[in-house]
Amino acid sequence: MRRSKSSKWNNLLSKKDLINKIKEDVLSEIKPSEEDIILVRRIAEDVKERILEKAKDLNLNISVILVGSAARNTWILNGKRRDIDLFILFPTTVDEKFIEEKGIDLIERAMEGWVLEQRYAEHPYVRASIDKEVDGEKMRFDIDIVPCFDVKDPSHIISAVDRTPHHNIYVMKRINGKEGEVILLKKFLELLGIYGSDNKTKGFSGYLCELLIIKYGSFEDLLLDAADWRPPLYIDLEGIGCYDKKDPLVFIDPVDPNRNVAAALSYNNLCIFIDASREFLKNPSKSYFKKREIVVKTYEELKNFFINRETYILAINLRLPDFAEDIIYPQLERSKDGIKRGFEDNAFKILNSYIYYTRNEAIIIFEFEVWKLPKITKHFGPNVFDKDAADRFKEINKDYKIFIKDCRYVVERERKFSSPKDFLEKNILKCALGKDIRHIIEDKEYHLLGIEELLSKNYIRQFLSEIY
Amino acid sequence: MRRSKSSKWNNLLSKKDLINKIKEDVLSEIKPSEEDIILVRRIAEDVKERILEKAKDLNLNISVILVGSAARNTWILNGKRRDIDLFILFPTTVDEKFIEEKGIDLIERAMEGWVLEQRYAEHPYVRASIDKEVDGEKMRFDIDIVPCFDVKDPSHIISAVDRTPHHNIYVMKRINGKEGEVILLKKFLELLGIYGSDNKTKGFSGYLCELLIIKYGSFEDLLLDAADWRPPLYIDLEGIGCYDKKDPLVFIDPVDPNRNVAAALSYNNLCIFIDASREFLKNPSKSYFKKREIVVKTYEELKNFFINRETYILAINLRLPDFAEDIIYPQLERSKDGIKRGFEDNAFKILNSYIYYTRNEAIIIFEFEVWKLPKITKHFGPNVFDKDAADRFKEINKDYKIFIKDCRYVVERERKFSSPKDFLEKNILKCALGKDIRHIIEDKEYHLLGIEELLSKNYIRQFLSEIY
Repeated sequence: MRRSKSSKWNNLLSKKDLINKIKEDVLSEIKPSEEDIILVRRIAEDVKERILEKAKDLNLNISVILVGSAARNTWILNGKRRDIDLFILFPTTVDEKFIEEKGIDLIERAMEGWVLEQRYAEHPYVRASIDKEVDGEKMRFDIDIVPCFDVKDPSHIISAVDRTPHHNIYVMKRINGKEGEVILLKKFLELLGIYGSDNKTKGFSGYLCELLIIKYGSFEDLLLDAADWRPPLYIDLEGIGCYDKKDPLVFIDPVDPNRNVAAALSYNNLCIFIDASREFLKNPSKSYFKKREIVVKTYEELKNFFINRETYILAINLRLPDFAEDIIYPQLERSKDGIKRGFEDNAFKILNSYIYYTRNEAIIIFEFEVWKLPKITKHFGPNVFDKDAADRFKEINKDYKIFIKDCRYVVERERKFSSPKDFLEKNILKCALGKDIRHIIEDKEYHLLGIEELLSKNYIRQFLSEIY
Repeated sequence: MRRSKSSKWNNLLSKKDLINKIKEDVLSEIKPSEEDIILVRRIAEDVKERILEKAKDLNLNISVILVGSAARNTWILNGKRRDIDLFILFPTTVDEKFIEEKGIDLIERAMEGWVLEQRYAEHPYVRASIDKEVDGEKMRFDIDIVPCFDVKDPSHIISAVDRTPHHNIYVMKRINGKEGEVILLKKFLELLGIYGSDNKTKGFSGYLCELLIIKYGSFEDLLLDAADWRPPLYIDLEGIGCYDKKDPLVFIDPVDPNRNVAAALSYNNLCIFIDASREFLKNPSKSYFKKREIVVKTYEELKNFFINRETYILAINLRLPDFAEDIIYPQLERSKDGIKRGFEDNAFKILNSYIYYTRNEAIIIFEFEVWKLPKITKHFGPNVFDKDAADRFKEINKDYKIFIKDCRYVVERERKFSSPKDFLEKNILKCALGKDIRHIIEDKEYHLLGIEELLSKNYIRQFLSEIY
């Protein structure tokens, strides 16, 4: 039986004050200030006007809206950078080609003099950047300007981005006064490494955070419920859901009953959130909102660490062409898993494996549990009473001594690969790999790293220091 | 569809002559000679008379019969030793205590002046031995004299030995002229290491060999059928069977429908026989009846052999009290399997394991596939959403860093055992062991052998030379 919210709080009443104090303290540090909000609004307004004006010149029937966390004041501070999302709404009477060409053209004309970069999601859009002095400090503003269709019913969108203006309307109506709760939740998730719905993070999107706060009212009420979650979970704010895939958390998009806002969230990350919810409520602390200080270990420290563990390390260093992270990261994961399977099919056993990733380089690191094996291996053949198979097996293995064990023919043969390195050198292309990773390996744009070479890279020492 | 016997022979007709020649040649070497048979009969007759005479003195109402292969001329030559089985039949009006006491007393009085040794099966019996000069050569005769009940219906026996006289009658009536076939079959099985129904061999008993020849008529007709066998098999000469256990080969005892003559035969040994049958028919050769010359490898040769295999050897040397082989051998097997399981539960992996056994010593030898492991091991806990179990796991592992992996809590902890030797030293008594082996180990009547100590024993070099 589900306990009621108030009875759940009974055990935590004594902590209520502590939690409120923590929230207040943390928010005072991470919440955008009034000045910040006004500045972001002013810049957004400025860009909006430029676009509207140019549209008039070009005789384009559009409107422009500010969307995303900048519109709702729910962004988390990101150093000296502010992200702003502006959407240009075109009538559905034009076609996709039209908005792709005219939309980009419009933006480029309107934003003359800014640093512009064309980017691609389902459609092209433009990132316009500008540096401004704020209180004597240099601040960078990145404004994503996205053309989309002005679709009335978001369950019948033309392009994925067409949903965004509807999300904006939905959240704007309900989030007033709860912005701080959203910001706390985002920060909490960020420090757990599970904020973001990209293919690498597989966590909670900003929109999902807003919806969760709308649903539960406050950060701590969400955590209180999450502490008891048992996936799979199903949340449907509007009671309209018709989503039938089996995700660990289904949160029906209130503007599109066919869509799960939490589709990108992995099972494991949901578990990390559930566990952290319990831990925070057990022991509320500001540390949940502060980046843990990582002391980067030295070469010697890490080397000794692995010597003491008595494990074996082998890594694959890949040079990456200029791929979008969302494209290449899943391929890196697939390749890591495929190579791991290859190792394990040959009796080498993996204890841990990791992907280090930056724009032009990836390193897949394997830590082995079993890496030293005899030169010979038992090769089991057919059952003795399977006469035809027996004849074939004997013919193939005529150079070996054939034993009968557990009613099967068996020979001891040389092992195919004498070490993990030997396996990689001879067989990496026989593993299941992501398509582009396969090309990179075919083109020999990779090399193998032993423990010494791996630890000689300072960013890897940083990466490993964060894990161990 | 089963091919008929004649059509099966079609493909082998060309080999019929060769097989007959081989049989003739082999039999001329291994079949007991006329003189041999007469001598055995004379000695058996002599012992029989001694017993009958003494029984008259003691007023015992018994009869004495010669049974076993000596009665049927189906024994295989065993160097300068001849085995003779004599059974003393008591009426069922007396009880077991009577035959145990009076039977042994009778034998001891009758055989005064012989070397006597009291032995135990289900009941005590006596082995009487005598050395005789035969053609100027010393020959040893071992006569097992077994008291039993003269049971009319062998499916209602009092003691297991009571069946033997009935076996004798059944075989004697049918084996005439086929003795050579039985002898060939026994020799063939002996060289495969599967002749004998004792707990170590788990092969074909002499009686089973005789019944198989009665069923199939000749050695080669048996092999021809066996080449196509697919266990489980069921043979019932008299159509009387009511045996319902699932053995690989069921051969209903023609004198006892409840008994499987082949109950001791292991699945693997049946497979060895099936395979050898095919191989012999494919390529008939006298070599199947001749002991393979084993060249015993030197210490250096064997040492290098294992160095080249890159395996690791560890053995347990046990001092054995004076146990009957049939009692202790199954315990050695159980212990070997139990220790193997113990190793594998701790991630050490066994490639091969063997038991070397003689009367007062046993050595269990393990050859490892995985023996080197990291100091740490992953220890998986409960699912994250199993809240109570999670709390317990965290309490137990509070000194370790806890990760969440595949939605479960996991810690990396020190491995319990750092090497196979370490495991044996600390944990051998926690393994499933045979009862008496456990006592031997508790009493510290054992020690561990590494490869050097093991290979320093010449009988082990012989043993291993036969395997590899």
